[in-house]
Amino acid sequence: MMTPHSLRIGIAGITGRMGQGLVCSAREAGFIVTGGTCRQSGTKITGADPLMNNLRLVRNLSDLLADVDVIIDFTNVSTVVSHAETLAEAGVPWVLGTTGLTADDQRAVNAAADHIAVVQAANFSAGVTLVLRLAREMGAVLSGDRYDAEIVEMHHRQKVDAPSGTALAIGEAVAEGRGTSLAAVRVPAREGQCGVRQAGTIGFAALRGGQIVGEHKLIFTSATEQIELGHRAFDRRVFADGAVQAAKWVVFQAPGLYSMENVLGLA
Amino acid sequence: MMTPHSLRIGIAGITGRMGQGLVCSAREAGFIVTGGTCRQSGTKITGADPLMNNLRLVRNLSDLLADVDVIIDFTNVSTVVSHAETLAEAGVPWVLGTTGLTADDQRAVNAAADHIAVVQAANFSAGVTLVLRLAREMGAVLSGDRYDAEIVEMHHRQKVDAPSGTALAIGEAVAEGRGTSLAAVRVPAREGQCGVRQAGTIGFAALRGGQIVGEHKLIFTSATEQIELGHRAFDRRVFADGAVQAAKWVVFQAPGLYSMENVLGLA
Amino acid sequence: MMTPHSLRIGIAGITGRMGQGLVCSAREAGFIVTGGTCRQSGTKITGADPLMNNLRLVRNLSDLLADVDVIIDFTNVSTVVSHAETLAEAGVPWVLGTTGLTADDQRAVNAAADHIAVVQAANFSAGVTLVLRLAREMGAVLSGDRYDAEIVEMHHRQKVDAPSGTALAIGEAVAEGRGTSLAAVRVPAREGQCGVRQAGTIGFAALRGGQIVGEHKLIFTSATEQIELGHRAFDRRVFADGAVQAAKWVVFQAPGLYSMENVLGLA
Amino acid sequence: MMTPHSLRIGIAGITGRMGQGLVCSAREAGFIVTGGTCRQSGTKITGADPLMNNLRLVRNLSDLLADVDVIIDFTNVSTVVSHAETLAEAGVPWVLGTTGLTADDQRAVNAAADHIAVVQAANFSAGVTLVLRLAREMGAVLSGDRYDAEIVEMHHRQKVDAPSGTALAIGEAVAEGRGTSLAAVRVPAREGQCGVRQAGTIGFAALRGGQIVGEHKLIFTSATEQIELGHRAFDRRVFADGAVQAAKWVVFQAPGLYSMENVLGLA
Repeated sequence: MMTPHSLRIGIAGITGRMGQGLVCSAREAGFIVTGGTCRQSGTKITGADPLMNNLRLVRNLSDLLADVDVIIDFTNVSTVVSHAETLAEAGVPWVLGTTGLTADDQRAVNAAADHIAVVQAANFSAGVTLVLRLAREMGAVLSGDRYDAEIVEMHHRQKVDAPSGTALAIGEAVAEGRGTSLAAVRVPAREGQCGVRQAGTIGFAALRGGQIVGEHKLIFTSATEQIELGHRAFDRRVFADGAVQAAKWVVFQAPGLYSMENVLGLA
Repeated sequence: MMTPHSLRIGIAGITGRMGQGLVCSAREAGFIVTGGTCRQSGTKITGADPLMNNLRLVRNLSDLLADVDVIIDFTNVSTVVSHAETLAEAGVPWVLGTTGLTADDQRAVNAAADHIAVVQAANFSAGVTLVLRLAREMGAVLSGDRYDAEIVEMHHRQKVDAPSGTALAIGEAVAEGRGTSLAAVRVPAREGQCGVRQAGTIGFAALRGGQIVGEHKLIFTSATEQIELGHRAFDRRVFADGAVQAAKWVVFQAPGLYSMENVLGLA
Repeated sequence: MMTPHSLRIGIAGITGRMGQGLVCSAREAGFIVTGGTCRQSGTKITGADPLMNNLRLVRNLSDLLADVDVIIDFTNVSTVVSHAETLAEAGVPWVLGTTGLTADDQRAVNAAADHIAVVQAANFSAGVTLVLRLAREMGAVLSGDRYDAEIVEMHHRQKVDAPSGTALAIGEAVAEGRGTSLAAVRVPAREGQCGVRQAGTIGFAALRGGQIVGEHKLIFTSATEQIELGHRAFDRRVFADGAVQAAKWVVFQAPGLYSMENVLGLA
Repeated sequence: MMTPHSLRIGIAGITGRMGQGLVCSAREAGFIVTGGTCRQSGTKITGADPLMNNLRLVRNLSDLLADVDVIIDFTNVSTVVSHAETLAEAGVPWVLGTTGLTADDQRAVNAAADHIAVVQAANFSAGVTLVLRLAREMGAVLSGDRYDAEIVEMHHRQKVDAPSGTALAIGEAVAEGRGTSLAAVRVPAREGQCGVRQAGTIGFAALRGGQIVGEHKLIFTSATEQIELGHRAFDRRVFADGAVQAAKWVVFQAPGLYSMENVLGLA
C-alpha cells in the first residue's frame, strides 16, 4: 500500500517555471519526482539546473504513468482534454491548475472525475484558500450597516490592472457572506469628490511597487473596532507547495471533483 | 408583539462607567432605556451628564421589571444570585457580563436559564468573539509544522501584565484548532539567547504605549506566505455595543444559556 | 519671571469644539486657562460642562490680555486683522490656527510678527509636522528610479474627498525631496487597466470606514526592501495638544513669525 | 575619464554567497564585473552558475587591480591588513563590508584611507542606514515623557537571539536623539507582571517565523497619536545592492574613510 512518504509524482510541463517550482516543492516535502512531460522527449537538462538531474522527460503523459501515483498539471489549455482521457483510463489522480478552460474542456474534466479523483483550482495557495473562506464568514457576521469593508492590495510594479483578481475574489466572498453580490456593492477606487461612504458597500484600493508577489488586506471598521485579515505571498513557490499538498491528499480520495477547500478540510 | 424598535432596556449598575456606556449604546441603537439600578434609589443625576436625564433609578432590580423587555447587567458578583432569582421569576431575559463568578453563582445562572434566556460572556465585543472563532479555524488548517503562529498585542502604558488575557485566549483558540492546549506549546517573550524556534509552538510579544485600548494580531508565517488576523478596539464602548446587540437578540430566544457566539450566529 | 508652570493661557473662541479641547489640553499640561472670547460676553456656562467653570468669558480679546501670557486662536478668518492689531499693541504672543486667510489677513499677521512672536500653522499635530519633514528626507535619499513611493490613507466614512489634504502634503514633501513637484509625478487612484507603474511617480490610495480620525502611511518599495512611515491620529485632541505646546514655546521667543517646525526644533 | 556606466568592479571573495550576490547586483546596475579573488586561482566555475562565466578568478587581489576601478570586499578579517596595503599602494578605492575587525585591522584601514577613498559599513542596506538616521531625529523630537517608543522585529525561525542587532541599533539611535543611551532606558521583553510602563523607556519585542529576512518597526505612541517607521528586507540582495551603490559613489571621492551615511548624503 502506498504511503505519503513514497508518493511518486509526475509533472506535466516539468521544464517550465511552474514545473521547476513543483520539482522543488515535491522534493522538499519528501516525495519522489519520477519525471514529467515536455515538448521534446528525451530532453537533456544540462548542469545549469541540477534540480533536473535524474528525471525522466517524456513527450506524452501516458509514457509516465506506469511509475507515478499522481499527476500535477499546470500546462496549457490545449492539453486538458487529452490529459483527462489518458488519466481517467489509467486511473491516476490529477491535480489540475491549468486555467482558461472552455466549457468543453470543463466537461472533459468532469467526465474524468467519474473515474479518478481530481483537484481543480485557480489558486493553490493554502493561505488564499483559507482567506476566502474566512472572508465569507466575516461578511456573514460583520453586517454592512455597522462594519465598513475595505480591501487593499499591493503588487509589483509590472502589474497592469487593478484591483487584483484575488482582491475581487475576497470582495466576492464578503458579499456572499452578506447575502449579496460584489457587483451590487463594489465601490471603485476613490479619487476626488467621491462623497460619503454608503453603508454596505465594499471599497478597493491598489498599491504598486517593487517586486511584491502579492499582499491583500481585508479591513472591517465600525465606530468602535476594526478587524483585519491579511495575506502576503513571499514567493511564487507558495502555489507549487499548495499543488503538492493537493497531490498528497488526492491519492487517498474516491473518484470525484475536488477543490482546494476540500484539500484543506474547509468545505 | 414586541419589535426591536421599541425594545425597553433596564441596566443594572446604570451609574457606573460601563452603565453610562450602555445608556449611550442603547440609545444610539434606537432603543428605550427605562432606567437602572444604583446603590441609592431616587438618585438625582445632575446636569453634569445630560445622558442620565429622564431615567428611573431604583435600588432593587425588581422595581424596574414591569417596564423593561430585557436587563443588561455588568454589576458585581455579589448581585448575581439575587438577580438570577428575580429575573427567572419575572421572566425577563438577562444579558450578563459580570465576571469572577463562583461555582455557586454559576449554578444560580444555570438555574435561571431554565426559565429565561440568558446571554453570558466575559467579552461582549463582536470583533473579539469572531477573532477567537476564526483563530480556531486557522489553527486547524495551518499546521504547526509549516506555519509558525505568533501573537503580538499592544495596550496602554498603565497595563501591568503581559501578555493580555485576550492574547492568551487567541493562543488557546489556535492550540485548540491544532488539537493541543496552549500550556503545551506556549513560548514566553523572547529575550537574549532563546534558540531556534521549535515547530508547533506559539509565541507572544507585548507592546505598551499611550492610551491604546487594545490591539491584537495573530500571524501565521510559512516559508512562502503569511496570514494575519488582527483586531483593534478604538473605544471601550465596543463592549457596551456588544451587550446591546446581545439584548436585542436575547428577547427573541427560548429559555437557555447562550454565549456571544450564539448571538453572532457563530455557534 | 514667568515660568512654563505658571503659564496663563487665553483662548480665542473658547466655547467652540476646538476651544473646549484647548481648555482640556492646557489644563492637562499644567497651565492656567484664564478665560477666552465668545460671541456673548458674560456667558454663563452651565453644569453640562464642568470644564468651563471658573473661566472668564469676554466678548473682546482686549478684555482678556491683562491676565494672560499667550493667546491661542482657532477662530474665524473675520477676526484675524483685529486680533493681529490688538495682540501686537499689547505685546502678547499669538498661536494662530485660523485658516483660509486672505493676502490682506496674512499681511496683518506678518506686521504683528514685527512686534510679537507668532506661531502660525495649518496643522498643529507634532506627529504630522515631523512626518512631513521626514518624508522630504526620505524622498531625497530614496530615488524614484529604484524606490516606488505610495501613500495610503484611511479616514472616517463621512469624509467626502480623496486623497486627504495631509496625504497630498506628504506626497508634496516626497516630491520636494526628489527635486520635483507632486503635480508632475502624481498618479490617480488605480482602477481597471492602468498599465505598469512608471518610475518616479507617486501613487495614492484612500480607504474609508468607521470613525477613523486619520491614518496615513508612506511606503517606499524597491526590489529588495521597503521603508514605511506611518501616522495615526487617535483623537482630534492631538491638534489642541500641539497648539498648547506651541504656546509654551512661543512665550520665550523674540518677535517673529514661526511654524510648527520651529516649535519642534525641526527648522 | 571614467564614467559610472563603464565602472569596472572587482570582488574579493567572489565565489561565496555574498560574492555571487554582488556579481548579480553589479551587472543589474549596468557595471562590468572584471573578476574576483577566490581561494584557488584559475578556478573553473562550471555551468551550474552561468552568472560566473567570463569572470577572471585570481588568488591574489593584486592580480586583479590593473583592470578594475574599485574593489568590493566582504571577505574574512584575516585579509583586511593585506588588502589595505595592496589597495593603498595601487590607488584603488575600497568598499569594505568585512566585520569583526581588531584594533590593528582598523588601524590598517585608517592608514589606507590616507591614500584611497574607503567606504566601510556593517550594514550596506540603504533603507536601514536611512532608518537609523530618521530614528535619531524622531527621538529628538518625540520626547519620552509624552511618546512611548517601542521596537518590534520579526526574523526567520532559525534566528537564535533576540532582539536583533538592528533593533538594538534603532533603539540606540532613538536614545541618542533623546540625549541618553539605550543601556539607560532599555526594557526587556515583557512577560508576566511587569508593571506600568515608565516614561522615557524603550521597549523591545521579537517575533519569529518562516524565512523572514528581517522586519523592524519603531513605534512612538502618545495619548493622541502614533508615528511609525518600518523597514522590511525582502532579500539578502539588499546588502549587495548597497555595496554596489557605495562602489559607484566612492570612485569619485577624495581619499578618506566614509560611511554609508556619506554615500547616501545623510552625514
